Amino acid sequence: MEDVMKEEKQEIPTIYTLDEIQKVINTPNFATDLIHAIQEGFVALERGEFFACPIQTMGLPPFPFVEDIEGYAAQTCVKSGYFRGQDYYVIKIASGGYPIPNSGLMQIYSQRTGKMKAILLDDGVLTEIRTAAVGSLACQLLGPSIIETIGMVGTGIQARYQLNMLKTVTECRTIHLWGRTTNKVEILRDELLKDGWETVHIVNDIDDLLKECDVIITTTCSREPLLGKDLTVLSHRKRPGLHISCIGSDAPGKMELSPHLVAKADLLVADTVSQSVERGEFQSAYREGLIPVVDSNSSTLLSLGRLIERKDLHRNDTEDGRFTIFDSSGVALQDCIVAQMTYAALNQQL
Amino acid sequence: MEDVMKEEKQEIPTIYTLDEIQKVINTPNFATDLIHAIQEGFVALERGEFFACPIQTMGLPPFPFVEDIEGYAAQTCVKSGYFRGQDYYVIKIASGGYPIPNSGLMQIYSQRTGKMKAILLDDGVLTEIRTAAVGSLACQLLGPSIIETIGMVGTGIQARYQLNMLKTVTECRTIHLWGRTTNKVEILRDELLKDGWETVHIVNDIDDLLKECDVIITTTCSREPLLGKDLTVLSHRKRPGLHISCIGSDAPGKMELSPHLVAKADLLVADTVSQSVERGEFQSAYREGLIPVVDSNSSTLLSLGRLIERKDLHRNDTEDGRFTIFDSSGVALQDCIVAQMTYAALNQQL
Repeated sequence: MEDVMKEEKQEIPTIYTLDEIQKVINTPNFATDLIHAIQEGFVALERGEFFACPIQTMGLPPFPFVEDIEGYAAQTCVKSGYFRGQDYYVIKIASGGYPIPNSGLMQIYSQRTGKMKAILLDDGVLTEIRTAAVGSLACQLLGPSIIETIGMVGTGIQARYQLNMLKTVTECRTIHLWGRTTNKVEILRDELLKDGWETVHIVNDIDDLLKECDVIITTTCSREPLLGKDLTVLSHRKRPGLHISCIGSDAPGKMELSPHLVAKADLLVADTVSQSVERGEFQSAYREGLIPVVDSNSSTLLSLGRLIERKDLHRNDTEDGRFTIFDSSGVALQDCIVAQMTYAALNQQL
Repeated sequence: MEDVMKEEKQEIPTIYTLDEIQKVINTPNFATDLIHAIQEGFVALERGEFFACPIQTMGLPPFPFVEDIEGYAAQTCVKSGYFRGQDYYVIKIASGGYPIPNSGLMQIYSQRTGKMKAILLDDGVLTEIRTAAVGSLACQLLGPSIIETIGMVGTGIQARYQLNMLKTVTECRTIHLWGRTTNKVEILRDELLKDGWETVHIVNDIDDLLKECDVIITTTCSREPLLGKDLTVLSHRKRPGLHISCIGSDAPGKMELSPHLVAKADLLVADTVSQSVERGEFQSAYREGLIPVVDSNSSTLLSLGRLIERKDLHRNDTEDGRFTIFDSSGVALQDCIVAQMTYAALNQQL
C-alpha cells in the first residue's frame, strides 16, 4: 500500500568526507574567493537578504546529554539559514564542550524542492576557515598599508587558520607570538617557521604587541582582559596605524581586550552590532560607559556590512594613524557561504 | 598543517533508503512495538524527561524560498529533541506546502559524542506512521471494548496509515467511510477491500457516523467543522460508548468537529494540553466557553501522558457509555521514538 502513496523518492544525498573537503579548500584560490564571498555576504546581510533561524541548543542543563561525568559541558547547536533567491539553504550541526572534541557538519538542501543534496563532513574545519576568512577580511579593510609585524594572541587551532589565511591578504611574514603556555608557543613557532613564515618572535609581555605590531589577531577563549593592561605603550609605537581583529572569546562574559583599550580605538567594527552589545570585546566598554551608545550612521561603532559599503572608512593611506578594532562573534551567513562554496567546488571536481 | 589539527575524523554516517526503512516498518511487530514505545514516551514527557527545541521554520514570508510562483507556500521545519539519558538525539527536517510534495528525513546523533550516526531517508513515511500510532494508542485506551464499526473521515494518506495501524488494536474489519470527493472515496474503498477490510460502506451524510460507529478517526485538513452539525443523532446511537480520535487539522484555525460536539464529550484528551488551547479541535470550544478552563487534575480535559497513568480512566467496561475525544497536534517525541526504533531495527538486520 505504501508504494502508491509517494510519487517521488528522496534521491540519496552525497556525503563528502573531510579528505575531499580539504582538497578543495586547499586549492590556490579558495581562500581569496571565500574572503570575497564573505565580503559580499555581509553586504547582503546589511540589505536584509539573509535569513537565520534562532539557534537550537541541546545538551544544556537541566537536560544534559550525559549525567555521570564531572564537569560535563558538551552541547550541540543547530544553525540554519539561507540567502533569499539562492539555490540552497544550509543547516550546520556543531557539537563541542568538555569532554568531547569540537566537531561539526554542514548540510546542503535545495530551496526549490526542500530536499537534501549533500552533507559536508568537515568536522568543524569549515567553521574554522570561515572564521579565519572574516578576520582576514577585516585586516584587508582596516589593516595599515604597510604591515611589518603581525601580532598573534593565542596558540590554538584558530591561530593557525588565521595566520594561514592572512598570507593571502598581506606579504608580511613576521609574527610576534604570545601564548599562556610556553610549550604550546614553542610548538606553534616551530610549525609556523616550517610553514613559510620568516620570523616568529615569542613575546613574554603581551602588551609589547601593542608597541611592535601593525596588526594583531586575538584567538583565545579568555574570560578576562589580556591585552591593554598598560596603555602607555601605545604612545611608544614605532609606526602609525594599528588594527586588532578579535576572533576568540565571543560569549557573554568572555573578553580578550581591556575595556580601556577598546575605548581608545578610533573605529570599532562588529560582525553583528546587536550581538556586540551582549558578547565579545565591546560589552564591558559599553557597560562601563567608555564608548558611546550605538548609532550606526555616525558613531565610532558600525557593522562589518556597513564598513564594507563605506569605502571612505577603509584604510588606504600609509599615513593613516587610526587605531581600529574588529570584533567577530560569528554569524550564520558565514556558514552558509563556506558550505555553498565548498559544495560548488566539490561538484565541479566531479 | 590541517592534518595535525584534528585528532579524530567523523565516521561516515549510514544512509538508509525508503526501501530499507519500509522493510523494517512492515515487519509483524513494528506497529505494536511503536504504539507501546509511544505510550511510554508520553509518560516520560509528563515526567519532564523529554526535551524539544523550539521549531526552526524556513521559507515563510518575508523570506520565501521561491518568489516567482503564484500561490507559493512551501516551507521547511527543523525539529530537534531527545530523551534524557538515552543514546541518541534526533533531528527531523520536513518540507512541504504548495507546490512541493511533503517530504522529510530524520537524523540520528549520539548524545555521548555529538556525532551523526545515520540518516533515515523516510520521505515523511515515519511521520505518517508515528501519527497513526498515536491515533491507535488513543483508540486502545478509550475505544469501547466492542468495536463493530469504525468511522473514517478523510481519504488521504493518513487515513490509510490510521486504518492500517488500527488493525493491530482491534479485530473490527468494518469501515464507514466519508470523504468530500466521490472519486477519492471510491478509490480508497476499493483499496481497503483489497487490503483485508471486510465491509467498507460509503456514507453520504457525515453525521451518520455518529449514529453508526463506535470509533471515529478524522484525518482531513478542514478549516470548518465537518462532524457534529446535527447533534440529535447522538441520541439514536445503537450501542453505548463512542470514541473519536482527531488526527487532521492541527493548525490554529483548523478544525474537524463542531465545538458543540466537543462540548458533549465526557472526557477530552490532547497530546499536549497547552497546544490544544491554540490549535486543533478544542480551540473553538474553549473560546466559546463551552468547555471548562483547563485543570488537568480533575477536569474533563487531560494530557495523553496523564491519561496513560490514570488507569481508572481507561475504557475497560463493555457497558461504559462515555463519549471521549482525543486530539493530536503532533509532538517531537513521536519523531524521536519512531526514528530511534527504526534505526535500532535497521541495525539489528545487519
